[in-house]
Amino acid sequence: MASSFGVCRLHMRGWGSLAKSFPKTEACFQRKFGTNAAAAQAEVPRKEEIEEKAAPKPFIDVQAERQEQAERSVLISCQSKTNEKKFLKLLSKHGDIKKYFYYESYGTYAVVEFANKESIASLLEATAIPSVNHESTVPFKSRLLSLRGSGPAEQSRLQCEPQTTIPINELIQRLSREESVDRQVTSLTEAYQLTEENVHLRFLVCSLVKDIAAAYFPECIIRPFGSSVNGFGKLGCDLDMFLDLDGISGRNIKVPKTGLSLEYQMKRASSERAVTQSILSVIGECVDQFGPGCVGVQKILNARCPLVRFAHQPSGFQCDLTANNRVAMKSTELLYLYGALDQRVRCMVFTVRCWARAHGITSSIPGAWITNFSLTVMVLFFLQRRSPPIIPTLDHLQELAGPGDKSVIEGNDCTFVSDFSKIQLHNNTETLEQLLREFFEFYGSFAFTKMSINIRKGKEQNKPEVAPLHIQNPFEPSLNVSKNVNGTQLERFVALCQESSWLLQQSDISTPRGGSEGQTPVPWGLATLLLPSQVAVIKGRKKRKREPASERIKSLLESLKNKNQQKKS
Amino acid sequence: MASSFGVCRLHMRGWGSLAKSFPKTEACFQRKFGTNAAAAQAEVPRKEEIEEKAAPKPFIDVQAERQEQAERSVLISCQSKTNEKKFLKLLSKHGDIKKYFYYESYGTYAVVEFANKESIASLLEATAIPSVNHESTVPFKSRLLSLRGSGPAEQSRLQCEPQTTIPINELIQRLSREESVDRQVTSLTEAYQLTEENVHLRFLVCSLVKDIAAAYFPECIIRPFGSSVNGFGKLGCDLDMFLDLDGISGRNIKVPKTGLSLEYQMKRASSERAVTQSILSVIGECVDQFGPGCVGVQKILNARCPLVRFAHQPSGFQCDLTANNRVAMKSTELLYLYGALDQRVRCMVFTVRCWARAHGITSSIPGAWITNFSLTVMVLFFLQRRSPPIIPTLDHLQELAGPGDKSVIEGNDCTFVSDFSKIQLHNNTETLEQLLREFFEFYGSFAFTKMSINIRKGKEQNKPEVAPLHIQNPFEPSLNVSKNVNGTQLERFVALCQESSWLLQQSDISTPRGGSEGQTPVPWGLATLLLPSQVAVIKGRKKRKREPASERIKSLLESLKNKNQQKKS
Repeated sequence: MASSFGVCRLHMRGWGSLAKSFPKTEACFQRKFGTNAAAAQAEVPRKEEIEEKAAPKPFIDVQAERQEQAERSVLISCQSKTNEKKFLKLLSKHGDIKKYFYYESYGTYAVVEFANKESIASLLEATAIPSVNHESTVPFKSRLLSLRGSGPAEQSRLQCEPQTTIPINELIQRLSREESVDRQVTSLTEAYQLTEENVHLRFLVCSLVKDIAAAYFPECIIRPFGSSVNGFGKLGCDLDMFLDLDGISGRNIKVPKTGLSLEYQMKRASSERAVTQSILSVIGECVDQFGPGCVGVQKILNARCPLVRFAHQPSGFQCDLTANNRVAMKSTELLYLYGALDQRVRCMVFTVRCWARAHGITSSIPGAWITNFSLTVMVLFFLQRRSPPIIPTLDHLQELAGPGDKSVIEGNDCTFVSDFSKIQLHNNTETLEQLLREFFEFYGSFAFTKMSINIRKGKEQNKPEVAPLHIQNPFEPSLNVSKNVNGTQLERFVALCQESSWLLQQSDISTPRGGSEGQTPVPWGLATLLLPSQVAVIKGRKKRKREPASERIKSLLESLKNKNQQKKS
Repeated sequence: MASSFGVCRLHMRGWGSLAKSFPKTEACFQRKFGTNAAAAQAEVPRKEEIEEKAAPKPFIDVQAERQEQAERSVLISCQSKTNEKKFLKLLSKHGDIKKYFYYESYGTYAVVEFANKESIASLLEATAIPSVNHESTVPFKSRLLSLRGSGPAEQSRLQCEPQTTIPINELIQRLSREESVDRQVTSLTEAYQLTEENVHLRFLVCSLVKDIAAAYFPECIIRPFGSSVNGFGKLGCDLDMFLDLDGISGRNIKVPKTGLSLEYQMKRASSERAVTQSILSVIGECVDQFGPGCVGVQKILNARCPLVRFAHQPSGFQCDLTANNRVAMKSTELLYLYGALDQRVRCMVFTVRCWARAHGITSSIPGAWITNFSLTVMVLFFLQRRSPPIIPTLDHLQELAGPGDKSVIEGNDCTFVSDFSKIQLHNNTETLEQLLREFFEFYGSFAFTKMSINIRKGKEQNKPEVAPLHIQNPFEPSLNVSKNVNGTQLERFVALCQESSWLLQQSDISTPRGGSEGQTPVPWGLATLLLPSQVAVIKGRKKRKREPASERIKSLLESLKNKNQQKKS
């Protein structure tokens, strides 16, 4: 199996090939991607550096660095016209500031990262308890502070980093101004992906919640998982976190067979699940009663995976706190790895997800529709099916695993390689435009009725069950990731794939239409794919397969013709 | 007012006069009282030491010492036949052991006090998390440990310190063997009062609960109050504690009028009461879900004084945790002070309380009956009304207060002296027997219908309201401590006082009857007063004032006559 992969080392491929694909935008691309979360450790190298570029860092190393950074950070509510110089001077008394930025979320906030953790203790030492009505505040201290007082009013506002995506219409306009479909795809990725600052903020919120949990479990860690850290997160996505209690000491102390020894007296529960519920119940209560800025706390303890849901107002994040969610963590690491292997992976996933959301294929509420995770696995599968494959199969990644990568969770083997330097990729040079068109083509004609999607094998397999859409769970092979999807939803997806595939083949639509300066640009290429479609609605009522020219497209073509005629005249 | 008190310094009186009253039992009395909680700092001096004896330590100093001791202690569940030598060797690895003792409570436990707090950290470092079914234990670590494993079975059991009182019948037998009423009263006090070990355990339990609360409020203290520390607690009494958040730092940081400063963002609540409810709710949840050995947790948050009630199995204590209970703390300190001023105070209170409980005048459940606190205030008032007074009035104690004693709580002046050396006592030499008889006489004929009991003034005052029994709250003068008491209950109390007074005047009853060795001794003196009475029951139905000879007494006198006749024959 390993021999089916080429000899082309990762550090010579992936990022390098993409750089070649976008010669004109490369500099910008590098800079922008340099601030990105998952990509931060794998910046696009300059051409001359490609040969020397080191492999991306393993997932757990990146996580550990981020956690450590968050522990050295504080979150401060300030006014938009705060005198920045005075503000920084006040903070600098407690040590060197390594990094800081501002953002808006129900007010203006600053994230300040000190060079040393000791500065935090010093800062908190000098921080007051609110004196106005101090008797009616819960005196729970955290690293969420408020700036009080002000000097003379400042003329300029603090420059804020955006923490949300641009609206879809604005995105369509931005894409319409790009000069190639490849550039449109990367532009969309740049607009949607998490920024360096946003990831910093996510880890900081986890760290604040950790302070609450650590009150009782000093060795615990709150780890973000899912889209916040898998490289595929969109600005504004939920913050999933899990309470990791595995680091609790005292489990490895050997109790001698003879003689006396001591152990902690601890409350017993009927099952591990009951323990999880107990712990989440208490932490949920604390978050609710003590956690500043934490609102709408819900304890959803009877769910399959018990969780505490709350909104963290100062960051604007919707948070889900779980415990004992190790398989989800492994899935996150796998997606991170695939995303960091070749930059086209993330571009494709962002584009397909954005396209799906624009057409209501996915939704923020649960239902019979396809999930973002399912879509991501479908993109990965598609990229495994290219010739040559762009990314390896999960089975191959498992073969490459070292002894330290061994992981069996609840009987499921979740082992795969974490060291990027061990992974060799094929020399696939397809452009994003080609890949996007092929993606729609691929799933527009996929044999969903018979076949199952399986990224472990990287091959279609016969469906083991009758669900309309079958995508094997990578780590729990007996489970279908898309079990929830009904026939109607799958049909809509297929019809939209067919339509989009057809659209990208129209030369009128797939070339830039360049409007004049200041004018609303004419949508083209990827932008066209994001415009509202009629096909999904109609599909539900009439069977019109192989008839992709919807009303929308007809009128679009009509308008293009008119424009051309106007130009000529 | 001050001039009404004599020139006799405390260190020359009180304990000294008592020592004279019990020349034969003095040595024993000293030793026993030396192990007592409130009296620990005020041991009965040898006669020759009386002049040099230092005044008792102020309440807060004793509390602080006890708290510090508790922080250096651990609670360990062991087997009754544990090899003590091996056990102590295991612990000694972590530092010098200053004190230890064993007791029984749903198993055998050891309280171990190290000389240094660092030993605790070292001990916990070497403590294992239970390995059997470790997945179904809540991994919350505390200073409640279990001893595992064993060497060869030991022949001897660990010697346990009693943590409960002897049954009333056993007490009656013990008292009947004493040779004077004075000795009976001190014997009862010795049998009932908290031991040194029991007080240690009470502070340790508070310290364990503090560890839970300190997770969120690092500077908090859990303070025991009421009978656990006021000197009047009986073995087995409830453990009342309150969460003191006043030490939280950051309240005194001055926020500059100009320029910038930082303050914590904290959750706001509509009132201080709501904050208390929030905090107790979370701590109650933690105690319930995490606290090893804590069972039957009830959050009683809508009470006038919100509280969390739970049973702490390893200690056997029923615990009530409140917050913001400062007046109760001041009451505790006042009782402590009165009890430490003259040993007769505690003896009288223990005796009257025991007598009242034996006759159902007081009860462990709330109702229309007299409370222990009311009874205690009645004893204090009685001792203030002696000629010369045995204890000063609260007004006088307030006059003696220094600047550091100033205390105003919710508008009520709770100021009184804390330095014992400032207090001068009168030279009253009445014996306990005299006092007891006079007490029953005093309240058997007290003008309850018109007068109010007031220890602030040390004088009866006209009743401000129509309640059957009116005892002014020492620190909230508008409140009646015994508002709950109804006419029937007061009548029962008065009737029993009359009966007891009458009994103590009977020479047959008030002199030792001395049975032969090994035989059940004939009740006499105080023992007689604890035997079941008919008067309380009858009183409710018929008005038989000034007719104290109940059926019980008749039969008692009858039996005494018979015995005398037997002796003669």
